Amino acid sequence: MRLSQSLLTTQREAPADAETLGTVMLTRAGYLRKIGSGLYAHLPLMNRVLHKLERLIREELDPISQEVSLPLLQPESLWRESGRWEAYTRSEGIMFTVTDRARRQHALGPTHEEVALDVVRGLVQSYRDLPVNIYQIGRKFRDELRPRFGLLRTREFSMKDAYSFHADPDSLREQFEAMSAAYTRILTRLGAEWRMVEADSGNIGGETSREFMVLAAVGEDEVLYTPDGQYAANAERAVSRATPAGPSPFSGFQTVDTPNTTSVAAACALLGCETAHMVKNVLYDATFWQNNTDGQGGTETLVPVLVSLRGDHSVNPTKLHNAVQERHLGTLTRLELAEPERWAASALPLGYIGPDLPDSVLARQSGLSPKFLRLCDHAAAELRDFATGANRVGQHVTGANWRTDFALPERADLRQAVVGEAAQHDPAQPLQSARGIEVGHVFQLGSKYAAAMGATFTGADGQPKLFQMGSYGIGVSRLAQAVAEQLSDERGLNWPACLAPYTVILTVVDIQNAEQMQAAEQLYGQLWAAGIETLLDDRPLRAGAKFADADLLGIPWRVTLGRGLSSGEVELKARRSGTQQTVRLGEVVAKITEASR
Amino acid sequence: MRLSQSLLTTQREAPADAETLGTVMLTRAGYLRKIGSGLYAHLPLMNRVLHKLERLIREELDPISQEVSLPLLQPESLWRESGRWEAYTRSEGIMFTVTDRARRQHALGPTHEEVALDVVRGLVQSYRDLPVNIYQIGRKFRDELRPRFGLLRTREFSMKDAYSFHADPDSLREQFEAMSAAYTRILTRLGAEWRMVEADSGNIGGETSREFMVLAAVGEDEVLYTPDGQYAANAERAVSRATPAGPSPFSGFQTVDTPNTTSVAAACALLGCETAHMVKNVLYDATFWQNNTDGQGGTETLVPVLVSLRGDHSVNPTKLHNAVQERHLGTLTRLELAEPERWAASALPLGYIGPDLPDSVLARQSGLSPKFLRLCDHAAAELRDFATGANRVGQHVTGANWRTDFALPERADLRQAVVGEAAQHDPAQPLQSARGIEVGHVFQLGSKYAAAMGATFTGADGQPKLFQMGSYGIGVSRLAQAVAEQLSDERGLNWPACLAPYTVILTVVDIQNAEQMQAAEQLYGQLWAAGIETLLDDRPLRAGAKFADADLLGIPWRVTLGRGLSSGEVELKARRSGTQQTVRLGEVVAKITEASR
Repeated sequence: MRLSQSLLTTQREAPADAETLGTVMLTRAGYLRKIGSGLYAHLPLMNRVLHKLERLIREELDPISQEVSLPLLQPESLWRESGRWEAYTRSEGIMFTVTDRARRQHALGPTHEEVALDVVRGLVQSYRDLPVNIYQIGRKFRDELRPRFGLLRTREFSMKDAYSFHADPDSLREQFEAMSAAYTRILTRLGAEWRMVEADSGNIGGETSREFMVLAAVGEDEVLYTPDGQYAANAERAVSRATPAGPSPFSGFQTVDTPNTTSVAAACALLGCETAHMVKNVLYDATFWQNNTDGQGGTETLVPVLVSLRGDHSVNPTKLHNAVQERHLGTLTRLELAEPERWAASALPLGYIGPDLPDSVLARQSGLSPKFLRLCDHAAAELRDFATGANRVGQHVTGANWRTDFALPERADLRQAVVGEAAQHDPAQPLQSARGIEVGHVFQLGSKYAAAMGATFTGADGQPKLFQMGSYGIGVSRLAQAVAEQLSDERGLNWPACLAPYTVILTVVDIQNAEQMQAAEQLYGQLWAAGIETLLDDRPLRAGAKFADADLLGIPWRVTLGRGLSSGEVELKARRSGTQQTVRLGEVVAKITEASR
Repeated sequence: MRLSQSLLTTQREAPADAETLGTVMLTRAGYLRKIGSGLYAHLPLMNRVLHKLERLIREELDPISQEVSLPLLQPESLWRESGRWEAYTRSEGIMFTVTDRARRQHALGPTHEEVALDVVRGLVQSYRDLPVNIYQIGRKFRDELRPRFGLLRTREFSMKDAYSFHADPDSLREQFEAMSAAYTRILTRLGAEWRMVEADSGNIGGETSREFMVLAAVGEDEVLYTPDGQYAANAERAVSRATPAGPSPFSGFQTVDTPNTTSVAAACALLGCETAHMVKNVLYDATFWQNNTDGQGGTETLVPVLVSLRGDHSVNPTKLHNAVQERHLGTLTRLELAEPERWAASALPLGYIGPDLPDSVLARQSGLSPKFLRLCDHAAAELRDFATGANRVGQHVTGANWRTDFALPERADLRQAVVGEAAQHDPAQPLQSARGIEVGHVFQLGSKYAAAMGATFTGADGQPKLFQMGSYGIGVSRLAQAVAEQLSDERGLNWPACLAPYTVILTVVDIQNAEQMQAAEQLYGQLWAAGIETLLDDRPLRAGAKFADADLLGIPWRVTLGRGLSSGEVELKARRSGTQQTVRLGEVVAKITEASR
């Protein structure tokens, strides 16, 4: 491609609304153009990067999966069958929906579990036809609350999604590992720094899931890991050993006046204990949606939740969401800090709430649960002789114990693991933290979807069996930008050879100089003939501007054709290392071919 | 690919709702699966066909255009700028719209003129950066009234769309011809029978457009063409010489009683003239939408239209639509045969209407035009001494002439050209008719979009100039099925080598026979090593079922590995010609390589 004939406009200034280095460089270098909030045009250079990434992904997946293409518009009925319509339209509300001229609704696909299972249940009758693995690369849509960071969080993006179907959990686990291995090869080939981490399964569901994180300061996810490499998890899910509380200063249950100490810190200071000796009790409001059995409409129920945990610990919202969802019928559509005015029969002793706050404080009203859902984090459940609220303003109790003084609520892992806590597998390994961009996620869904959608095959024993299912995603456009985030420098993009839109850029210092242009045209032809994708910068600009653009575009090799040509020489510069060498014109193709091996 | 490990299920029976041979065969052969009305999953074989077609298209376009990828979600504001939001949401109403969480509307792109121009006006400042040509291959959406015929008329489909931008009309014409030539090469390489025809520009607009039609009996379009190959046009647009009316039997204007002759045929029979001597006057209702100047809402206006044309001619709805639209402000959202009860002040003399039906028959009501829009087809305007309605029930006038007896309305080409009429370029060439599937459409849009969207560049004279624009589409999934429609036979699909998902299928007669399986595996490896994409039918089925499936799948070459192997021989059968030959095992790769050249 000759730059003089290409749709390339580079900019010196960063766009005002670009929040990350990668977004700045992709925009300045003419790879991207914003069309609207979270909506981008991929310009020719970006299109080439994405095509290369797609090809690399296909190379790793084709041996274990078959490529298909599923419709982006998905009938509402399929999402009703799986039970996810409510969760995706009411709760996070991240799904765009489309109404057709017959007033029927459709999902504008954020993911394709339902459609993939619908295809497979229609085609596969027998265990003999299993396993089946299919994948596709295409557009996905999310009605993001806050689209931002260029291609990292958009409303429309390119994704590779794969679905596998199995006769039994062993076969599913085998494919899960095969897909994890393929993802490992893909990320390794890209040469970026990344981690595979334990993850929460979110709305996709299932028991086991792993995320693949490209490490970058702008990453929206926190990864907690240990130095020995044995443990890495998304902070949403990470576990650790709670730092033990020291010996309790309290003995014997008593009520103590603690005026003006609505915070844990203030109460502990007054009581003369560590925050780890306190059980704090936090109220949440959980909203559940349950469809009517006739499929027409449904009802909302508000369930107040009382969470007990150690005073020095924080609630992990993802863990709490999962714990609450699995303990109540219907779809948990909202979970937020409580607004007691929505449900309290009288004023609550806020700041002094105890684990035994009675259900009688709940008003009797339609759509409101008559009881608290009471949960206690494991670390709080292990405390003895602790302090906690007395359910009266200005009073705490001390020296309390579960079972003797308070009924122990249902236990669950509800707390946030933090940097410095000891790993569960080895107390000598402290958790460390890094920021990551989630670029891949693999799920063992088990029979969740098949059960909801009544999808069966005939087993070896002649009986109907539920499909075991796996789901595997890579955010293709996000991954491309994640690599750009990690590898860009102050001069611009800096692509690995396997993603670079072109391998070489030929910079002609003076296009009026016939010798330079002639040599450039000849070398351009030779490089393409050798299969090396090459840009020819034949624009009427001064050399400095062209050098800056070559760096900005992030092309791995720059060949400068200038005065040295009079003695048959050109400059060969590597973008990554910055090294520059003088090379004979006739040796350029061989040098680059060799370096590309 | 080994069929035993693939997601392939063939069916003996045609699906109940498949209306065309191509749809039947693509479904029976396991290429497609219907997910909903006008929504299909492309299964692995179809995916391979589409990838090959996309590659072929890229090969022809890359030398003249740069590939990009534009968002499918498009801000409403861009469609308001171009003035097309109303036409696409109110009129035909074929555009899906999507509302986001902030209640902003988006188009779910049926086409990308607005987005492409928005990108280019942002990047291109000067005539020196023109021309620019970009294309993409991706999904498109249409809220079809009646999705049908498999991939021929779907609600979601794959399309190649291209947009070019020019400093002047000459440059646009040059690219228009270059794109037409690329389309010609693409269709020629596919080996299907096709025609390039003059076309109506529809909602896309612009002056000049051409369609590319694959001929097939199920085609929804009629192509009118001449045997000399000099003329071909979509019947929506086709022109011809009207067959001359004979000498009029009337002389001198008079009013004649013609009771019970509300049809042209009955009136002419009574009057003793040809239907070509009659001017019939047909009423239409045109609904226009005009936005308020403040951008908030708008108003609808009903404009009754009176069309005069020769009694033996029919109105061409497309021509009438264009003629009405260009004579009135606002967007023509509906045009249908009149319902006079919506607007007549009193009962009309239906069946006896004359060209001079007075405007006083129109009620005075808000939203109703106070005057008819009166149009006369050219052929009717040429008549002398004609008959027509007298505007009184049971009476016609005869011997009438324009200007002396009736004011001549505005003239326009409004009539349908029909088979057998003489071509305009040569009266000796009669129009012939064929059915076609529109697979491509190229448009010279001129400055229409740039003017609406205020998109300018700086010309050589330093003055702002409007971009000249072209638009070029190929329905990729539709084209694949169009080829299937034309080439399938009663045994199944019958792909040209360049589209076939695999070139060869190896049919093992008895998979229990070790010699056969071993030879098949070896040949399978050799063929892939030679770059020949091969299927291995190693399923535990009887040979007859495998032969039938090989034909159904439409793979160009079948190699049968059976008893002949004992003497080192296999059968090589060509799907297209049906010819079968006995070949030595060791010669198969060479034979197929040679035939594929």
